[in-house]
Amino acid sequence: MSLKDNIQALFAPKTVAVIGASAAPGKVGHTVVANMQDAGYTGTLIPVNPKADEILGLPVTKRIEDLPEGLDLAVIVVPVGAVVPSVEALIARKVRSVIIITAGFKEVGKEGYVLEQKLIELCTANDVAMVGPNCLGLISTQNHNNASFAAGYPKEGSIAFFSQSGALCTAILDWALGENVGFSKFISLGNKAVINEANMLEFLRTDPDTKVILGYIENVEHGAAFIEEAAKITREKPVIMIKSGTTTAGAKAASSHTGAIAGSDAAYSAAFRKTGVIRAEDMATLFDLAQAFSTQPLPEGPGLCVVTNSGGPGILAADATEKSQLINMARLSNATIDRLKEFLPPYASLYNPIDLIGDAPAERYRKTLEVVVDDPQVHSILVLLTPTASAEIMETAQAIIDVAKTTKKPIFVNYMGGMRTRPGQQMLNDAGIPCSIYPEPLIASIETMYKYYLWRQTPAQEYPTIKRNRQKARLVINEARAKGATEVVEFQAQEVLRAYNLPTPNTVLARSSDEAVAGADKIGYPVVLKIASPQISHKSDVGGVKVNLPDAEAVRNAFFDITARAQRLRPEAYIAGCLVQEMAPKGCKEIIIGFKRDDQFGPLLMFGLGGIYVEILKDIAFRLAPLGRDDAKAIIREIKSYMLLKGVRGEPPINFQAIEDILLTMSELSLDFPEIQEAEFNPVLVNAEKAVVADVRITLSA
Amino acid sequence: MSLKDNIQALFAPKTVAVIGASAAPGKVGHTVVANMQDAGYTGTLIPVNPKADEILGLPVTKRIEDLPEGLDLAVIVVPVGAVVPSVEALIARKVRSVIIITAGFKEVGKEGYVLEQKLIELCTANDVAMVGPNCLGLISTQNHNNASFAAGYPKEGSIAFFSQSGALCTAILDWALGENVGFSKFISLGNKAVINEANMLEFLRTDPDTKVILGYIENVEHGAAFIEEAAKITREKPVIMIKSGTTTAGAKAASSHTGAIAGSDAAYSAAFRKTGVIRAEDMATLFDLAQAFSTQPLPEGPGLCVVTNSGGPGILAADATEKSQLINMARLSNATIDRLKEFLPPYASLYNPIDLIGDAPAERYRKTLEVVVDDPQVHSILVLLTPTASAEIMETAQAIIDVAKTTKKPIFVNYMGGMRTRPGQQMLNDAGIPCSIYPEPLIASIETMYKYYLWRQTPAQEYPTIKRNRQKARLVINEARAKGATEVVEFQAQEVLRAYNLPTPNTVLARSSDEAVAGADKIGYPVVLKIASPQISHKSDVGGVKVNLPDAEAVRNAFFDITARAQRLRPEAYIAGCLVQEMAPKGCKEIIIGFKRDDQFGPLLMFGLGGIYVEILKDIAFRLAPLGRDDAKAIIREIKSYMLLKGVRGEPPINFQAIEDILLTMSELSLDFPEIQEAEFNPVLVNAEKAVVADVRITLSA
Repeated sequence: MSLKDNIQALFAPKTVAVIGASAAPGKVGHTVVANMQDAGYTGTLIPVNPKADEILGLPVTKRIEDLPEGLDLAVIVVPVGAVVPSVEALIARKVRSVIIITAGFKEVGKEGYVLEQKLIELCTANDVAMVGPNCLGLISTQNHNNASFAAGYPKEGSIAFFSQSGALCTAILDWALGENVGFSKFISLGNKAVINEANMLEFLRTDPDTKVILGYIENVEHGAAFIEEAAKITREKPVIMIKSGTTTAGAKAASSHTGAIAGSDAAYSAAFRKTGVIRAEDMATLFDLAQAFSTQPLPEGPGLCVVTNSGGPGILAADATEKSQLINMARLSNATIDRLKEFLPPYASLYNPIDLIGDAPAERYRKTLEVVVDDPQVHSILVLLTPTASAEIMETAQAIIDVAKTTKKPIFVNYMGGMRTRPGQQMLNDAGIPCSIYPEPLIASIETMYKYYLWRQTPAQEYPTIKRNRQKARLVINEARAKGATEVVEFQAQEVLRAYNLPTPNTVLARSSDEAVAGADKIGYPVVLKIASPQISHKSDVGGVKVNLPDAEAVRNAFFDITARAQRLRPEAYIAGCLVQEMAPKGCKEIIIGFKRDDQFGPLLMFGLGGIYVEILKDIAFRLAPLGRDDAKAIIREIKSYMLLKGVRGEPPINFQAIEDILLTMSELSLDFPEIQEAEFNPVLVNAEKAVVADVRITLSA
Repeated sequence: MSLKDNIQALFAPKTVAVIGASAAPGKVGHTVVANMQDAGYTGTLIPVNPKADEILGLPVTKRIEDLPEGLDLAVIVVPVGAVVPSVEALIARKVRSVIIITAGFKEVGKEGYVLEQKLIELCTANDVAMVGPNCLGLISTQNHNNASFAAGYPKEGSIAFFSQSGALCTAILDWALGENVGFSKFISLGNKAVINEANMLEFLRTDPDTKVILGYIENVEHGAAFIEEAAKITREKPVIMIKSGTTTAGAKAASSHTGAIAGSDAAYSAAFRKTGVIRAEDMATLFDLAQAFSTQPLPEGPGLCVVTNSGGPGILAADATEKSQLINMARLSNATIDRLKEFLPPYASLYNPIDLIGDAPAERYRKTLEVVVDDPQVHSILVLLTPTASAEIMETAQAIIDVAKTTKKPIFVNYMGGMRTRPGQQMLNDAGIPCSIYPEPLIASIETMYKYYLWRQTPAQEYPTIKRNRQKARLVINEARAKGATEVVEFQAQEVLRAYNLPTPNTVLARSSDEAVAGADKIGYPVVLKIASPQISHKSDVGGVKVNLPDAEAVRNAFFDITARAQRLRPEAYIAGCLVQEMAPKGCKEIIIGFKRDDQFGPLLMFGLGGIYVEILKDIAFRLAPLGRDDAKAIIREIKSYMLLKGVRGEPPINFQAIEDILLTMSELSLDFPEIQEAEFNPVLVNAEKAVVADVRITLSA
């Protein structure tokens, strides 16, 4: 059977063997057997131990060789030295899946790494779905399967959680028990030797018991598989992830701005964005979103209506709503206001937030909510209650629960308080209506849900194919590699650009001052002169660029000046001469477009305004290749200085399509040539008419 | 007695009368009497009611006239129409303080506003400390004083809370009861007719029972008093405030709520910054900070040490620490690491975060903490625990409590979980050690406490006096006012600048082209020509500025061109001629320095780089006048584009002192002339040598 089939066996096994089962309470090999029994596992459970006869009332099998053939799942808790022989023996019995709880592999150093490689070989060669090693095990509540040594067991629910950290599993499990939140699956992935987050996403997509997926990752090792599966599943189910280690500098020493700026965290953010994965910035957000997504429908628009019994909290909620990027305070329709007028007291505020006043009984909430859910401008509702003397805490909770049953709009509740409000909060949460003591996190959840709704509405992007002469570009790059160069010099790099039909400035390589003047005569004055040397990539640093040269004499002087200075400052460099280049058209903006190849996720494209905007203000946007036309539009709009491109003070906007085309071409180039490690078009000069790639650097992998 | 003395009577009254006391349970007049009794009030409590004989076992006084003279406190709950007569009668009895719970004043419209004005007149004329109207009342736990109709009563503690919203009082009270948090004072300020947040800050500064002050405000009406008191108290006690109505939607809700006119949010932020008030962005932060400040000492440095029993949560904590602005992961000393090596198991991570590994018993935590608190590089400690199978939840809590007693460094705890961790969390919180289920908010609290520590360390600023000829400037402004102008034209405005010794470009007013040429000859070419008209303040809009005019002919042509165009485009404008101005020195940066007079807080100064930085990127910093030299330095460093002023790509830095001087002068000018509503120096041109105010606009109040 395939690996995919065998993953099913991990969660819904008919037969489970515990290799290293123990009769001694407190031992992991005992806890696993007890956990399986306590979960009400209904299949065949076989403890394996060479010395015991009975464990927890179950007959013990002495040797793996005596297990039934085609066993669904084996949980391995033997000492580290016995793991590989156990797996070999299990494979001989045609085991379908294993969970290796035992630690002492990759995480402890080289010896463990070698052992782990052996496990990987064995399992992949035989399509064995292996979880771990160095993990807590897994839980599948609907299958009454607790193949873990976890200290608790959650109730059945629709949330799945996988984690690279066993401790996080432990913590979230304890949280779930404390908050009475149900889970479908709990997977401690450990070292992710075989089964990783991509396999889990693939499996959970079609798991009928799972509605929402949570994940904790520290790294992704198979970026392409992750992106493929993540992009698929988010079209059907929300995936919320915490990625830790975000501030540890994962960026290698890089030679361009693109390389230096694009740390690994930018690549993860881009991967999540590309695939619609929701990134939780902290643990509180992860929990809040899990509850929101698993209990409430998605808001189908930005309009939030706040219903409150007190002004202050209503203002706080309105503030938080307006501070959000995507949602806003709904403008209630006249029909709604007319209906509210019929029964609300004269001092009530009929506008949003609807202030029912401090003496509001539950019935006033009920009637108001019944009216509000009908308003087409209202897409989500936040009910606020402070425990005033006359507040009917439980009755109001019941009214909210009743109205929620009649609508497909999400309802969230903020019971602001503690002692008196707690039973109402509990009642609401138990009924599947998220209730918190603060308004702000609820509003953040509503916004994230709406963002996910928009993601689901957006059609999958198409990636246009760019017309290009790949062979011609290949020749240039092969030639550079043949010379052992890791940098394609500008003149050659321009060949690559032309092969991709990218607009480049008219350029001539001049080996002498005479050739420079002849070239300038041909191009037309004024011109630019640039040093041409494979060893000098930061031309300005050696005074290697002179612009706006008006005539032949200036060109001749500049040629001598540039080459002499370069020879003096960089005596080791081979000076081919100078490039003579046409001047940029007037009124141009400088743009930087680049990419850096991320180890996990491939080409990470970067866009920003040139000069200080990128270098000082760090006003940059990232996307992973491939780019679609919508991506290209979005990356341009994302930078803060976008307004400058649209034109300020009566300037015309730049030719956006020309920039989009360059972005799409850069994307194609990055995918066509995996040996290009980094590339940067800097600057791209653009005005209202056209764009030109004025300078280019291409760095090859060593 | 003074108002200040009488405020004491509000909290520690020897005699309290309840005007409108009632025998009927459920009535506010009944609840207040019952609340006083339940709080264990030991003074004399006198219900006042014309019809009753006894209320809750107390003899009733029929008429205010029969109350003892010099009564400390009267709580008024009579209907709105009876409030003013009651207050008049109380004043006749020489009452020291009153709380008006009754609503129906400013918040309901004009009629109520008039009534409220009457109350203000009565109370201020007689120095009566009046709280309300339209409030919940107040609580002072150490005095067993519950002069409110609140539904609960907190335990004694060191936190004081005042609030413009009664509902927020109710909510926070219920939270305090739920979390078992103690409070010293609870004040519902209501409409703030007499006693406002400034009075409260003044009182709480010397209140021995209060260590931490929390406040909820929607607006401040007496900005100067607020700033004075806030700046004083924060030198001694932390003040944490929520300011709502920060967005337009919030402000709209605010003005429909209590008739508050919300000042600009930038002014509030500047007021908080100037006075060291900590602004909580949301309710959760307010609660977290209240607990942190009231229980833990301030960290005296940025170094945080994380001690954990699991890697994943340790990484999350390290991420959050590195993302913070002010704190960082402490680098442990070699001595610490050597001591840890003695007892930690070999797989433990000895560096920060110190990972004690999943099997860590309480003793391992205890020993580690004992070592860590000695490290001089460690200024605060975060202990993490996930409920692993072998975690000793209660014993570890005890170990933390024990070590905390031996150190003056703040300790925070993250028990990540729910069900199993809860008793440990409770035990820690009860012992005064903040324990939460997430690490991130704790790290945010540590950072805020350290920021407050730094504030306390910073000496109070001195405000330098600027040499200026105030009389000369006064003449110019009076002249403009005499003409009924609201705008001081540039040429006159330059007079003001010169009176303040501000550097202005050499400028001549030319009424004819001949005068323009003569002026230019005197100044030296090239020059700038600008339209001079009191009605035209946006000169560029009418093509009214021409720069870099190289000779007499160019000046003459420009004069005709500018004046003719201005006459055509703005036929109603009086054209005085043109200003002839020296050109800006080379290599200048454009800066904008301005101020706008805020209704509450006075002149709000603004600083930013000219052009797109302010207009498009909104890269602006604000401060309230007066500015000190440190403020001037700080406002410049605060903008994102500060690096541009320091010089990039080998440029020299600008003359920072010249810009600071202009900022300090602008501050002085704004305070000297309250009739200047707005002023803007735009641009100020600055290079490495000097700064010049190239253009100026001064707008007077109408």
